Amino acid sequence: MQHAVIMAGGSGTRFWPQSRRTRPKQLLPLAGPQTMIQDTFARVAPWTEPARTWVVTNAAQAEETRRQLPDLPPGNVLVEPCGRNTAPCIGLAAVRIVAEDPQATMLVLPADHVIQPADVFRQAVERAAAIVERDPDALVLFGVRPNSPATGFGYIERGAPLGEPSENAFQVAAFREKPGRETAETYVASGRFYWNCGIFVWRAERILAALAEHEPAIHERLTVLRGAVGRSDWQAVLDSEFPQMKSISIDYAVLERARGVAVLEAPFEWDDVGSWQALVRLLGRDAEGNTLDGPFCGVNARGCIVRSTDAEHLIAAAGVEDLIIVHTPDATLVARRDDERGLRALIEQLAASGYDRFL
Amino acid sequence: MQHAVIMAGGSGTRFWPQSRRTRPKQLLPLAGPQTMIQDTFARVAPWTEPARTWVVTNAAQAEETRRQLPDLPPGNVLVEPCGRNTAPCIGLAAVRIVAEDPQATMLVLPADHVIQPADVFRQAVERAAAIVERDPDALVLFGVRPNSPATGFGYIERGAPLGEPSENAFQVAAFREKPGRETAETYVASGRFYWNCGIFVWRAERILAALAEHEPAIHERLTVLRGAVGRSDWQAVLDSEFPQMKSISIDYAVLERARGVAVLEAPFEWDDVGSWQALVRLLGRDAEGNTLDGPFCGVNARGCIVRSTDAEHLIAAAGVEDLIIVHTPDATLVARRDDERGLRALIEQLAASGYDRFL
Repeated sequence: MQHAVIMAGGSGTRFWPQSRRTRPKQLLPLAGPQTMIQDTFARVAPWTEPARTWVVTNAAQAEETRRQLPDLPPGNVLVEPCGRNTAPCIGLAAVRIVAEDPQATMLVLPADHVIQPADVFRQAVERAAAIVERDPDALVLFGVRPNSPATGFGYIERGAPLGEPSENAFQVAAFREKPGRETAETYVASGRFYWNCGIFVWRAERILAALAEHEPAIHERLTVLRGAVGRSDWQAVLDSEFPQMKSISIDYAVLERARGVAVLEAPFEWDDVGSWQALVRLLGRDAEGNTLDGPFCGVNARGCIVRSTDAEHLIAAAGVEDLIIVHTPDATLVARRDDERGLRALIEQLAASGYDRFL
Repeated sequence: MQHAVIMAGGSGTRFWPQSRRTRPKQLLPLAGPQTMIQDTFARVAPWTEPARTWVVTNAAQAEETRRQLPDLPPGNVLVEPCGRNTAPCIGLAAVRIVAEDPQATMLVLPADHVIQPADVFRQAVERAAAIVERDPDALVLFGVRPNSPATGFGYIERGAPLGEPSENAFQVAAFREKPGRETAETYVASGRFYWNCGIFVWRAERILAALAEHEPAIHERLTVLRGAVGRSDWQAVLDSEFPQMKSISIDYAVLERARGVAVLEAPFEWDDVGSWQALVRLLGRDAEGNTLDGPFCGVNARGCIVRSTDAEHLIAAAGVEDLIIVHTPDATLVARRDDERGLRALIEQLAASGYDRFL
């Protein structure tokens, strides 16, 4: 049967002050009226039903996650005792799923990306599932054709085609870590590289077998967990086993080592919404080059990204350029829009200045 | 007896978004925990009692003015039916005062200036009153020794000394309108010019007589008003007479024409708090050159004027310079700090953009 696993453990600070520790990016309405996890839940709904949709998150966000997804069975929210990167996260979901559906195929995707249009995404997932149907050992990744030499993503180099050329499915020739600008430019120019967008399709038993082969210590603990599914001591076993797993991404743990890894060119539009700059791509610009979300009035204000999270709170600007201005009920940010390092430093400064409660 | 008249009809927009139509500058706590009119009321308290303190304001602000000054008899708030500049304002106060105290001496001062220290101000007012005591026809102004060639003030040129040189009292040789920068520089260099700070001491009957001489049409209506003080039709008479008076400042109407005008050098510190820039003078700067009032956290933020009117609302800034950032519960301003013209244009834009309710 078809299952979907939504990875929702993120806790970044790149959308401060809108994002907070207890309300990270995926629980915010960054790109429309719904929150990103609500959009993600809706995105997988045509592919599988809520009973076979799983969300992996952490204790601080579990309650809000369940609140935002009223159609999801509460028990399908899997709560990690601590963050251990994507390999243990996916392993946890896989053991939970195989316990009731040994033949399960898993779609794995992050909760905080923008993907459009919905039907193109669904068709793409079905094509990936068809590959897994043909070859039960296949580990299928989606690769996004880069539209710029971005240095913030890992790249996938494609190899020989799988099946018909029109399928745009390939063996993976190599994984490339986040490159420098010049290297990224050669990747883009070659036409053979994709961004790794962290969306996967495989059989649940297959990913567990791959973990057994490449990360046996993790797999050993997953096996203990697997034995506890449905038992009254499940939570206690999870709390004792999970924190002892190595913190490692599924890419390092499995994909860069395993045989049978395939990349399917993503036919959908994809945006990881990695910073406030993403709003420019998602919302566009007005005649003054401003990207606006919320009540705004400007005079000689250009190239600004302006967000007011309160539809009744006005932001007004005069004679300013290239700023990010974000208003939330208890904190306002004003920053240079190209200064992501400055924003990170500001977050550190907040903690150091006794403003921890605003994080 | 000694009376004080606080002119509180201002309705500027230079402190938007903190100032609003119904809450202009004098009703705001711009320079400390109390509002400016509360500070002004406290400033005159050592000189006269609340029963002889008068506030002239307008209908939109009367209620809040009375609320902020609980020790002031409510009837001592005189409500202008419309704005007619300072000559009718002072004339209205004078007729109200002489009705019960024909020998009254009036101190007249704006509600929205910062004056310090309090005891020096009180002594200065007593010296001005002593001049009026010696010469019942005297019209005494305070002149502020300029510390910069400001072009936003009228200047007073002093003439022959009155009394001992140590008294720093002079005949007024001439009034000079707001000068250009070069002229202002010659004024400052000469040592003979003062800023006209709009603070006056005179006998109530004397200013009425001067109005009779120089603005007989205004005086005629004031005489009608004078006859109605204490009568049941006072309000009706005020509503019919006041709007018909010429709108003119006391400077143009009387001071530039009358004999016996004296200037007393102000021994106190004075600031008209004319724009957000004034906060820099009043509150100082921190090591990064920022002027802060409210919770703030900055990284590479320099030369900014930052105000949060809510002690629980944090303003955070990264990589920005020379901005004004003002947060109020329903509106936030971000503007270049040296761009007062831009702020005026923004106010006009607000009205034109359907954001009138924020003014």
